[in-house]
Amino acid sequence: MSGILFVISGPSGVGKTTILQEVLKRDDRLLFSVSATTREPRAGECNGKDYFFLSREEFEKKIKKDDFLEWSNHFSNYYGTLKNFVKDGLADNKDVILDIDVNGAMQVMKKNIDAVYIFISPDSVSDLIKRLKNRNTENEDKIKIRIEKTKSELSLMDKYDFVVINKTLERSIQEITGIVISQRCRIKNNTDFIKQINRENQ
Amino acid sequence: MSGILFVISGPSGVGKTTILQEVLKRDDRLLFSVSATTREPRAGECNGKDYFFLSREEFEKKIKKDDFLEWSNHFSNYYGTLKNFVKDGLADNKDVILDIDVNGAMQVMKKNIDAVYIFISPDSVSDLIKRLKNRNTENEDKIKIRIEKTKSELSLMDKYDFVVINKTLERSIQEITGIVISQRCRIKNNTDFIKQINRENQ
Repeated sequence: MSGILFVISGPSGVGKTTILQEVLKRDDRLLFSVSATTREPRAGECNGKDYFFLSREEFEKKIKKDDFLEWSNHFSNYYGTLKNFVKDGLADNKDVILDIDVNGAMQVMKKNIDAVYIFISPDSVSDLIKRLKNRNTENEDKIKIRIEKTKSELSLMDKYDFVVINKTLERSIQEITGIVISQRCRIKNNTDFIKQINRENQ
Repeated sequence: MSGILFVISGPSGVGKTTILQEVLKRDDRLLFSVSATTREPRAGECNGKDYFFLSREEFEKKIKKDDFLEWSNHFSNYYGTLKNFVKDGLADNKDVILDIDVNGAMQVMKKNIDAVYIFISPDSVSDLIKRLKNRNTENEDKIKIRIEKTKSELSLMDKYDFVVINKTLERSIQEITGIVISQRCRIKNNTDFIKQINRENQ
């Protein structure tokens, strides 16, 4: 038996980080996949916990060695998911959560990896765009890029297995938890139990 | 949009009725499918609530008219699921729960009906058989038939989509609720929402 891989995406500003933090807090069997990046650590960020902070050279070497499940370049920094991190987590019977953007999720899908794809959607596009515009931390160009990215991400929602419409935090937590629990109940994830029952049943 | 059909089976004595009663109590969108039967009402049972009580003639007429989604004959009484009851519930946007035995579930599967199949399994076969043997309400022949039926039902568990291993009542309720919630989040059950987002996204 090995763990289940969950790939979760959602546009910037949708509230994904808060939702996932809560889901992870409530479930010991879940493991959050720590991404690698070339961007500078922010105050309080720890290497190996928030990100694996790599130099540009280290990152590009790993790209060449095909060490990434997916990777991308945003605002001239690299971000990527290390294959080994995911593989080790699954082998340890953890259910691994990948919090990656739609582009990354599409890369994973193309590799025919057995995963469960969840999209966290805003209830209303216009409300999300309003929120992005009101962010004071970013300049107008970055905001424009984010809005374009949001629109293109939303248009790919139907490639996912599940959509969680973020109406309230509690409801979204409950829905993601429900998806996680139900995947653990899938027949194909209980082959050991079924074998045991069949033996008892002789 | 229409509701989702859940077909739930599990061997006699596994605790299915208690679990489903709790699941239904906590979720307004679920509708329990009331079966039709030719057996006599027991004390306190209401027609249309516990069962639709039909005469043998009425039941056989309905079989001929193909009014049943599935039906069977146990201990010389008929039991069946009325197509119209299910159809009306789904059209009313309810998620309908069919509590039927494995034989009935196989009949529904063969009809290629879009449904989610859940099997409630005992944690241990020998414990279940012990419980069945200790039931004082039934004679030995009936108990023997039930044990044989249990074994044959368990051997068909892998035809289902999900298995809920009944370890504790609360855990089983949470798992069935999780499966129900997650099905509501499936992309194919949110086509109206996706269309709306795509319109907003223009």
